[in-house]
Amino acid sequence: MDSLAVIGSVTEPNSSTVTVSFQPLGRRGRVPAGISVLEAARRLGVGLSAVCGGAGVCGTCRVVVPPEGQDALSPLSDPERARLGDEDIARGVRLACRAFIRQSLQVFVPPESLTASQRTQVEGRQTPVRVDPVVVPADLQLPPPTLSDLRSDAERIRDGLGRPVRLDLEVLRRSPPSLREWGWAVRAVLRGDEVVALLPPGTPLVGVAVDLGTTKLAGYLLNLETGETLASVGAMNPQLAYGEDVMARITYALQEPEGAERLRQAAVEGLSQLVRDLCAQAGVPPEHVVEAVVVGNTAMHHLFLGLPTRPLGLAPYVPVESGPLDVRARDVGLPLAPGAMVHLLPTVAGFVGADHVAALLATRMEEADRPTLLLDIGTNTEIGLSVGGNLFSCSAASGPAFEGAHIRFGMRAAPGALERVRMIEGRVYWETVEGAPPVGICGSGILDAVAELRGAGFLNGRGGWANSDRPPFLSGDNGPEFVLVPAEASGLGRAITVSRKDVGEIQLAKAAIAAGWQILLEEAGIRESDLARVLVAGAFGTYIDIGHAVAIGLLPRLPLDRFEQVGNVAGTGARMALLSRAERERAARLARRVRYVELTVHPSFRERFAQALQL
Amino acid sequence: MDSLAVIGSVTEPNSSTVTVSFQPLGRRGRVPAGISVLEAARRLGVGLSAVCGGAGVCGTCRVVVPPEGQDALSPLSDPERARLGDEDIARGVRLACRAFIRQSLQVFVPPESLTASQRTQVEGRQTPVRVDPVVVPADLQLPPPTLSDLRSDAERIRDGLGRPVRLDLEVLRRSPPSLREWGWAVRAVLRGDEVVALLPPGTPLVGVAVDLGTTKLAGYLLNLETGETLASVGAMNPQLAYGEDVMARITYALQEPEGAERLRQAAVEGLSQLVRDLCAQAGVPPEHVVEAVVVGNTAMHHLFLGLPTRPLGLAPYVPVESGPLDVRARDVGLPLAPGAMVHLLPTVAGFVGADHVAALLATRMEEADRPTLLLDIGTNTEIGLSVGGNLFSCSAASGPAFEGAHIRFGMRAAPGALERVRMIEGRVYWETVEGAPPVGICGSGILDAVAELRGAGFLNGRGGWANSDRPPFLSGDNGPEFVLVPAEASGLGRAITVSRKDVGEIQLAKAAIAAGWQILLEEAGIRESDLARVLVAGAFGTYIDIGHAVAIGLLPRLPLDRFEQVGNVAGTGARMALLSRAERERAARLARRVRYVELTVHPSFRERFAQALQL
Repeated sequence: MDSLAVIGSVTEPNSSTVTVSFQPLGRRGRVPAGISVLEAARRLGVGLSAVCGGAGVCGTCRVVVPPEGQDALSPLSDPERARLGDEDIARGVRLACRAFIRQSLQVFVPPESLTASQRTQVEGRQTPVRVDPVVVPADLQLPPPTLSDLRSDAERIRDGLGRPVRLDLEVLRRSPPSLREWGWAVRAVLRGDEVVALLPPGTPLVGVAVDLGTTKLAGYLLNLETGETLASVGAMNPQLAYGEDVMARITYALQEPEGAERLRQAAVEGLSQLVRDLCAQAGVPPEHVVEAVVVGNTAMHHLFLGLPTRPLGLAPYVPVESGPLDVRARDVGLPLAPGAMVHLLPTVAGFVGADHVAALLATRMEEADRPTLLLDIGTNTEIGLSVGGNLFSCSAASGPAFEGAHIRFGMRAAPGALERVRMIEGRVYWETVEGAPPVGICGSGILDAVAELRGAGFLNGRGGWANSDRPPFLSGDNGPEFVLVPAEASGLGRAITVSRKDVGEIQLAKAAIAAGWQILLEEAGIRESDLARVLVAGAFGTYIDIGHAVAIGLLPRLPLDRFEQVGNVAGTGARMALLSRAERERAARLARRVRYVELTVHPSFRERFAQALQL
Repeated sequence: MDSLAVIGSVTEPNSSTVTVSFQPLGRRGRVPAGISVLEAARRLGVGLSAVCGGAGVCGTCRVVVPPEGQDALSPLSDPERARLGDEDIARGVRLACRAFIRQSLQVFVPPESLTASQRTQVEGRQTPVRVDPVVVPADLQLPPPTLSDLRSDAERIRDGLGRPVRLDLEVLRRSPPSLREWGWAVRAVLRGDEVVALLPPGTPLVGVAVDLGTTKLAGYLLNLETGETLASVGAMNPQLAYGEDVMARITYALQEPEGAERLRQAAVEGLSQLVRDLCAQAGVPPEHVVEAVVVGNTAMHHLFLGLPTRPLGLAPYVPVESGPLDVRARDVGLPLAPGAMVHLLPTVAGFVGADHVAALLATRMEEADRPTLLLDIGTNTEIGLSVGGNLFSCSAASGPAFEGAHIRFGMRAAPGALERVRMIEGRVYWETVEGAPPVGICGSGILDAVAELRGAGFLNGRGGWANSDRPPFLSGDNGPEFVLVPAEASGLGRAITVSRKDVGEIQLAKAAIAAGWQILLEEAGIRESDLARVLVAGAFGTYIDIGHAVAIGLLPRLPLDRFEQVGNVAGTGARMALLSRAERERAARLARRVRYVELTVHPSFRERFAQALQL
């Protein structure tokens, strides 16, 4: 698989302009010497975060220029010294608004310094795999039938391959005109002992990997011969029309006549459109896609496959199928090659799905030599822990607060959502998605707000207000509300605020998650401080400010350099399983090996949850 | 497999009535002593043929009573001595109209002495097979899920089986409510490493075997554990609406938009109805049918599967697939168990189909120790020859004359069809299907008529009329016509006749067939007289008078005791393949082993065909 980024060489131009390249984005261009790194980023279209607008006070525009490249920048300024720790300074961390460019250089942008919309363009963590897919091509030039050679088309192909293969019925149905049109030259695609597609000679073998999320779909089109990702597309899950979270959809499926079928069709239509978009992007006809891998949580897996969700919605919440599954694309309604199969990675339990298995696969969790925690924060937060070769997993019912639901001004990370909030010297700074006028607060913004309010003393440890009788508070129908954006700056025409109830939602969500990883640590017999690494996965995990998440106790209280925001590792795992038979087998072994911990019946759960409500 | 008939014991009743049993029909009952065997047959509902109405002149009511049972009958009469040969008499052959019953006895009825409608009730030749089907049951009692046992339904089944099986998607979709309704007791049906059905505990395993003929469908429902045939049903092929013969249907499929799809749907609807009828007869729900075998000629095979027939309709006439094929019942539209598969036996060539392979299988042709010929006479006549372990096959384009088409008064063997014709001392005797007033002539009737007309000197060897200037000839629009049934006896209100053109159609048909078997003999390097046995298969082969067929040169000129009318052996072969994995493998080997001889390009064909036109 191709690595995350290619580091380009830097050539020196004439003295008035210099070349700056931003990595790992790969964005590169010429700018006048003397401007700040932040300004250079803006001119080159790199969405660097700068909550205070470049005043040098918020510290969100951190970038890294390794010590050997520091000569290309102005010397360290006082505001930088004030906001950066010694360790950061030693690594070459700078504030982009305070570092001015003297010579050409490379700038490394950590994910947390990117704006949300830009961050989603960064691929999930990549893991090298040997390209060895389950489908293989065979290029044949067959003799045409004659009166002295009356073999059937299929027999001709079998003889050409020299193997007694089966041909899928749909392949048989479509082959005769194709073979004759192509002059009996054909690229047969084999999957085990079955021919799943006949392609025109010279057609590259492509496959699709999909992360079927409750909220979002992420799809990738890959060349199965080179491992190259040819296209990637994100989309909303059309099932959202039937409920925001998994339980709402299961309820819909159980209570509405045809509800399950409607949900199945919505998922299938969403994935079909994703496939068409991927193919359009890469200029490949969908009927040339010869294999697919789909990962998703157990409910999405069942709803997409048309498996009954009743057992999943009622205690003890067991799935219909948890093993790896190969289904014919046509049996599930996807518009791929006539005989193409869709592989579904195994699931672990009712609420620990194939997306978690894919994330374990992509992060090679079972190979971690020191205790490693993996969290994919969402409506359900899947948590994995690897300790000495043992894997533990659980699912925390964190609810949709981090996706903007149940928060008064909550919204998804759409334009105008407050995605970053800072309080500096009593003043509120914020940044919105795409810089649009503020219209609400997305998950990372509300997390920032709660952490900053607690840090500034406006919230006590129980989540109650302090000093709420004067501005920046206003008096709402249900008590005081903290004003993040005053009416005059708001795109809504009224103030955007945080209520006590909003804080409570965040407390519930973070308590569920914290209780989850704490119980996994307990089961593994280690302490918080024993964790060598914490991998924070998924879209929300990519957006959040790790320092704030640690501050409110959502994440373990560890030095920040032990955290890594790994992006959509579920999608990466899906791509690995698409490219490699060995990775599929490894996923099956992983799923069997994981020790699933059911939180709701765990003896420590209630107490840990109650304690973790504390901010 | 159960044998053809069970020979019951005969107990002696009081002297005024006696017990007669007719075998192999298994019909048995008490009749007054002193009546003829023919009368006894009528009273017990056995359709014995008697063209002359019991006058002792036609010889069609032959039955066999072995020498040790002859004491139960009146002594041999003069009419019997006149019409039976010495060899027949030694075997115990009697004319049923002249043999009077004295004591209880068993009477054996050869197929050619049965009326057409009764003959179809006689099963095809049975061949014993060891019951070892491709699907096997496993009876499981699974533990229900609990909070401490969260395995998925599928995992529970795998653990119950102790094997890592796959579950078909449709099985998974339907299993959860079933498992819970049945209290976790279930009969899993395995096909290799896949579960194709989950049945209520105690359900017998059943499968369906179908002979998909151009004109007729024959279906059998079998218990796959005992081998017993639970039901059998015949029906017309609904594709008849789109053409009488194979080439007409291929033309329809090629020339009409949606023609191929309409033909496919017609076949599927016909087979689906057949399955429903079989299931209704045996009281089994169709969704309990876990496996099916379908045999048919290559065109039927392709049209049913939805495979393109263009290559089959144009030279050099190659099939799309000739190998054995397993397709999901739902992929071809049959209403069986959710994951059930349909197995299609292999074909040999464009016009030698899986029905021929099934017939070879059922007759164990490859094991014949002396030269054996197999003919299945129809619109296409498939001919097989076994000599010293070598198998040769060809297909003769005999046309639909024997099915009543292209004959002026031709019709199928429906009520009122002349099915048997005899000329005795210048008088025409006939018998119609079900004894209804005559309305036309079916295949066996026209064959009889031509042979008798030739024998009586009304036809010369070239098929031309002799002595056609006086009754029983009348003068038609296109020359003289021989009157079989005068207007006053006809159900049509006008005479039923044979024209010169009708005779010509029979000449063409029989010449095509005779050239076929002659070329096979030539290829094998043997003479006509070397043939030790000739097996005449299929519905028409069951109806015809072998002596007449030999007389006109349709069949080899051999003693009659070398012929055997074996019935629907294609259906028998399908049943064998349904019951036994070994038979399926044997069929695949047979199909590969057969040496296919293409008649149309054979150097001897034209000459042999021209010679065989002679009557």
